[in-house]
Amino acid sequence: MKAIQDFYPDPLAQCFGCGRLNDHGYHLRSFWVGDVTEARFTPQPYHTALPGFVNGGLLASLVDCHATGTAAGAAYRKEGREMGTLPPHRFVTASLRVDYLRPTPIGPELLLRGRVLSISGRKVVVEVTVSVGSEVTVRGEVLTVEMPESMRPGPPRPPV
Amino acid sequence: MKAIQDFYPDPLAQCFGCGRLNDHGYHLRSFWVGDVTEARFTPQPYHTALPGFVNGGLLASLVDCHATGTAAGAAYRKEGREMGTLPPHRFVTASLRVDYLRPTPIGPELLLRGRVLSISGRKVVVEVTVSVGSEVTVRGEVLTVEMPESMRPGPPRPPV
Repeated sequence: MKAIQDFYPDPLAQCFGCGRLNDHGYHLRSFWVGDVTEARFTPQPYHTALPGFVNGGLLASLVDCHATGTAAGAAYRKEGREMGTLPPHRFVTASLRVDYLRPTPIGPELLLRGRVLSISGRKVVVEVTVSVGSEVTVRGEVLTVEMPESMRPGPPRPPV
Repeated sequence: MKAIQDFYPDPLAQCFGCGRLNDHGYHLRSFWVGDVTEARFTPQPYHTALPGFVNGGLLASLVDCHATGTAAGAAYRKEGREMGTLPPHRFVTASLRVDYLRPTPIGPELLLRGRVLSISGRKVVVEVTVSVGSEVTVRGEVLTVEMPESMRPGPPRPPV
């Protein structure tokens, strides 16, 4: 099954968090499950904060990329367009808020779940939760905006 | 010169963002410069968002660790204690807000600057900016709290 990020055109698929063309990145992949999006990620042992717990910066990074992916997917849906049709939707983050509700144990797979809170014009606000088993440990809210022209890449570059 | 994080006891120095004992991490190091704190970090080429710009998740991670380091330093200062004296201060993040004011170009060294907005009881609120040259590209505000007992590590573990 193709993830939302699999449809990003090559020059827009180099993100450290979710770019399929980034050899050093996290390769987060987000999928629609009905009206929400899901992504799964298992941190490495070195993705630690204090011993036994997942690093908060990594969690923020996962929330961020799952939100921009969700925003892109939502923008296509709103237009009734298939993912991958042109012109591409690609969102960047204007503002990120992450509440660490409780420590996230390191080891188990994390489930990220995204929900569109609002979509208007070039802005999409996405709520993302991170769960371990049945417990939500993190809640994020992300204001994403369609990539501005000033960030549009030039000719394709090789993988980083 | 020793950074604030250099004074973290070994079991509390394994953080992916700022732990000196994390072989895979960013090793962020924060220093007092008068009443503010500073840290410098040069992203790798693969720490990209869209080509040419620094990944927002990485920026959130740097803001996060610089804030918890600043909070620890501020807690020692408030008590008139030298860094490294016992018991240790070690803060974790309860809530993180990051505003991406403009895209952060990838390549140059980033300067993080931290400022304590409030300190009371076990809570320290820290503002962190990220600058490239003379331009502030990111502003963060982080609510940090003294590490709860439930997160205190057991016996020392080997580096991760």
